[in-house]
Amino acid sequence: MTTAGPAIDLNADLGEGFGRWTLTDDEALLSVVTSANVACGFHAGDPATMRRVCDRAVENGVRIGAQVSYRDLLGFGRRAMDVPPEELATEVAYQIGALDVFARAAGARVAYVKPHGALYNRTVRDEQQAAAVVDGVLLAGGALPVLGLPGSQLLKAAEKAGLFAVPEAFADRAYTSDGRLVPRDQPGAVVHDPDTAVARSVLIATDGSVTAAGGERIAVRARSLCLHGDTPGAARLAGRVRRELEAAGVVLEAFA
Amino acid sequence: MTTAGPAIDLNADLGEGFGRWTLTDDEALLSVVTSANVACGFHAGDPATMRRVCDRAVENGVRIGAQVSYRDLLGFGRRAMDVPPEELATEVAYQIGALDVFARAAGARVAYVKPHGALYNRTVRDEQQAAAVVDGVLLAGGALPVLGLPGSQLLKAAEKAGLFAVPEAFADRAYTSDGRLVPRDQPGAVVHDPDTAVARSVLIATDGSVTAAGGERIAVRARSLCLHGDTPGAARLAGRVRRELEAAGVVLEAFA
Amino acid sequence: MTTAGPAIDLNADLGEGFGRWTLTDDEALLSVVTSANVACGFHAGDPATMRRVCDRAVENGVRIGAQVSYRDLLGFGRRAMDVPPEELATEVAYQIGALDVFARAAGARVAYVKPHGALYNRTVRDEQQAAAVVDGVLLAGGALPVLGLPGSQLLKAAEKAGLFAVPEAFADRAYTSDGRLVPRDQPGAVVHDPDTAVARSVLIATDGSVTAAGGERIAVRARSLCLHGDTPGAARLAGRVRRELEAAGVVLEAFA
Amino acid sequence: MTTAGPAIDLNADLGEGFGRWTLTDDEALLSVVTSANVACGFHAGDPATMRRVCDRAVENGVRIGAQVSYRDLLGFGRRAMDVPPEELATEVAYQIGALDVFARAAGARVAYVKPHGALYNRTVRDEQQAAAVVDGVLLAGGALPVLGLPGSQLLKAAEKAGLFAVPEAFADRAYTSDGRLVPRDQPGAVVHDPDTAVARSVLIATDGSVTAAGGERIAVRARSLCLHGDTPGAARLAGRVRRELEAAGVVLEAFA
Repeated sequence: MTTAGPAIDLNADLGEGFGRWTLTDDEALLSVVTSANVACGFHAGDPATMRRVCDRAVENGVRIGAQVSYRDLLGFGRRAMDVPPEELATEVAYQIGALDVFARAAGARVAYVKPHGALYNRTVRDEQQAAAVVDGVLLAGGALPVLGLPGSQLLKAAEKAGLFAVPEAFADRAYTSDGRLVPRDQPGAVVHDPDTAVARSVLIATDGSVTAAGGERIAVRARSLCLHGDTPGAARLAGRVRRELEAAGVVLEAFA
Repeated sequence: MTTAGPAIDLNADLGEGFGRWTLTDDEALLSVVTSANVACGFHAGDPATMRRVCDRAVENGVRIGAQVSYRDLLGFGRRAMDVPPEELATEVAYQIGALDVFARAAGARVAYVKPHGALYNRTVRDEQQAAAVVDGVLLAGGALPVLGLPGSQLLKAAEKAGLFAVPEAFADRAYTSDGRLVPRDQPGAVVHDPDTAVARSVLIATDGSVTAAGGERIAVRARSLCLHGDTPGAARLAGRVRRELEAAGVVLEAFA
Repeated sequence: MTTAGPAIDLNADLGEGFGRWTLTDDEALLSVVTSANVACGFHAGDPATMRRVCDRAVENGVRIGAQVSYRDLLGFGRRAMDVPPEELATEVAYQIGALDVFARAAGARVAYVKPHGALYNRTVRDEQQAAAVVDGVLLAGGALPVLGLPGSQLLKAAEKAGLFAVPEAFADRAYTSDGRLVPRDQPGAVVHDPDTAVARSVLIATDGSVTAAGGERIAVRARSLCLHGDTPGAARLAGRVRRELEAAGVVLEAFA
Repeated sequence: MTTAGPAIDLNADLGEGFGRWTLTDDEALLSVVTSANVACGFHAGDPATMRRVCDRAVENGVRIGAQVSYRDLLGFGRRAMDVPPEELATEVAYQIGALDVFARAAGARVAYVKPHGALYNRTVRDEQQAAAVVDGVLLAGGALPVLGLPGSQLLKAAEKAGLFAVPEAFADRAYTSDGRLVPRDQPGAVVHDPDTAVARSVLIATDGSVTAAGGERIAVRARSLCLHGDTPGAARLAGRVRRELEAAGVVLEAFA
């Protein structure tokens, strides 16, 4: 009997075009990831794109998640908004329901929820908006898992509601010594060197640790690894991460 | 054993506000109609409104339908658009899916589909867009009934696809001698006198006929009667229509 | 030769419908105010409405101001957004330019700028966004006056940029003892009694003072008085305020 | 004294991104064209992009035109819409006014108007919408030239209104024997071979003629040549067209 190695999920944002505009290399990423965070039309993603990405995801055996966002096409969902919690919950549910139509048509279902951009960042600390996102997930039914940052208010609210709270890590982001992400506006926040990013991925998956900005090794809880696909070379790097993880004996599989 | 009288459904457009703006008198109409055509966010209707209307509809025992539209908030979905059929189908499915989340949360399901405004008018004769709407209904799953004008391409496409095609009539619109609606830009197109509108409702429901613009009595096939709720006095008139129908022995019930 | 009494401007938000939806009683308000804050399409206001309001404003001798907002139709511009300053400046300039077309076509020009809703509230204290709004005004050219709350960062930034900073007061809002507005979510924040609102208007205009929530009389600097027109009875109250001000010898005139 | 050769203007669509999404290679095209059709926010183009493109256009000595469109971000303005003429005129004026703010800030002015996509195509034959676009130009003031297809209802309406009607030709589109463009859905509608496109450009500019789809040489009236910049290689081809025109003694200059 063989012992399975450590397991990790690979997630990436997909379907982030809008009509005439394209952004993410959906085809390439779908051959790499195990979970697809599909844009639902609020920061990106139109119905035709959502349908196509869902179809391709199912063909590739990739799980479909709802990448929910503030309603902000111009800002690509990257501008925090003071949306009243009750409204935010309905906006989240609306997006999940809309995506689920295409997931079902493809023979699957929306299997998890991950907030996008400013909503992701804000629900790290904003208890009220975090609870509103979770309320939206519950409103949409199905008790879906929620993907987010370890220690975030979002994951706390998800757990409190009895949902599966899935922590994720980033191979291309620097961490502070206490396990937070170095803010993007600080030097060194993003790991640009592919070799380093690949090495960090393997360490996260096999050892549950990462080298923080100060140089010390810290623990990082992660059931999923977030890859990026909206920059040149990103899809290629994602593919390399996958191959190196497999070479290191890591089992790539979507979270339960 | 008593014999049941003729049966008809009463439908009206609901939830046609958007954020700060309100339009339809949803509360009043929900005590009158048997089927609520709920706006899904493309010409009107926001997630919070959709949720509230679905909750109230279920409380009132009113069936929920998806009032699907072109994506046109400024034009309130009243401007015909040359949307390519494949895109139109996905836009229709998206709206049905989004509404279904709130119908489910209220303990119901989206039970039928009715196009709104320019999409309703265009699919009377445009075979391609009619087929696209039906494709959207099929894509959303559940083989939902489609509500429309008798003889329209929309109902023909629905029947062809094996869907229940539900013809509706209008008590407050004039008919031509061959059973079409008199276009709105022609004199006498709209019946403004409440007594006349009420009398026509009863005749449609009990006799399947209506007095055409030329004075002759013509047959009009209708399993549902469309009431309007977006003008002053409209909700009151709708209530009167309901009472007179009941007094005439008509059974008010949603179509199967 | 008679001595003119104290002078004050009366401003109100106008043109806050969108397509099929209406909100403000534009006709009634234009017979009352001296300055019209016209919505520019970002929180409300569509081109056809903007044109009509500008035409009527000029016919009524009312000055046209650009009521600039965050880009948020669903939230009616009432949800604060973290818009990067450089983008915010261009959004403000865009709105001013769009409105100016209709002001010019009516034979006038945009004569001042007033932020709406969440942008108004946020620029009371947010120095960066206040500066961005002023940058937008400068970008649009014409060195327009800026209307806002006395002591706000917005008026400070306007003054710093050499613009005419116009302080305004609210007859229907309670003030704290140090001259701030009582937040809307606190009891007594809004003055609902028409007689009280009228009396406060007169006191503001003739004495530059108002009775604060604690009962003491405080000074309130105001070159303009903001009236509301989006609630039932609001336009009638506005008319009464105007008549009582005139009866008290106050000269109603737009600021220079 | 030398005699100047034939003169032609080179125009291209620019600024057709939206927020996070980019499309046209604005920098490259601005070194080639003499007139920039700048998107105004209705089919593409956001305020920050509009500002940047206007600034760069002025730096490059390129004239700024308003590329006006139906309000349709998802469809990129490529879906014809039945917009009532009075509304359409105000939508056109709104866009011109918004762009003019950034043109002025850059030290220029909007110098002409060209409809985009479906509005361009529809106003070739739709007299009512053509007149509405011209009404919008007049409403915006300044009696701006209108760029369009020779023989189109748009140019006829512009001439009738006393505006400068500027005919344009396409080097990469096939023509029918009677001088119309071969519809895009027909084979051979687009000239893909760069050498052919360049040769056609020179023939249009120097001889006022083009080889039609049937092989015969036909006259084509053009004061401007439209280049495309939204496909890979397009900007490079545009540059080559410019060099070959210059080599053939053609004077490249914006129309008066």
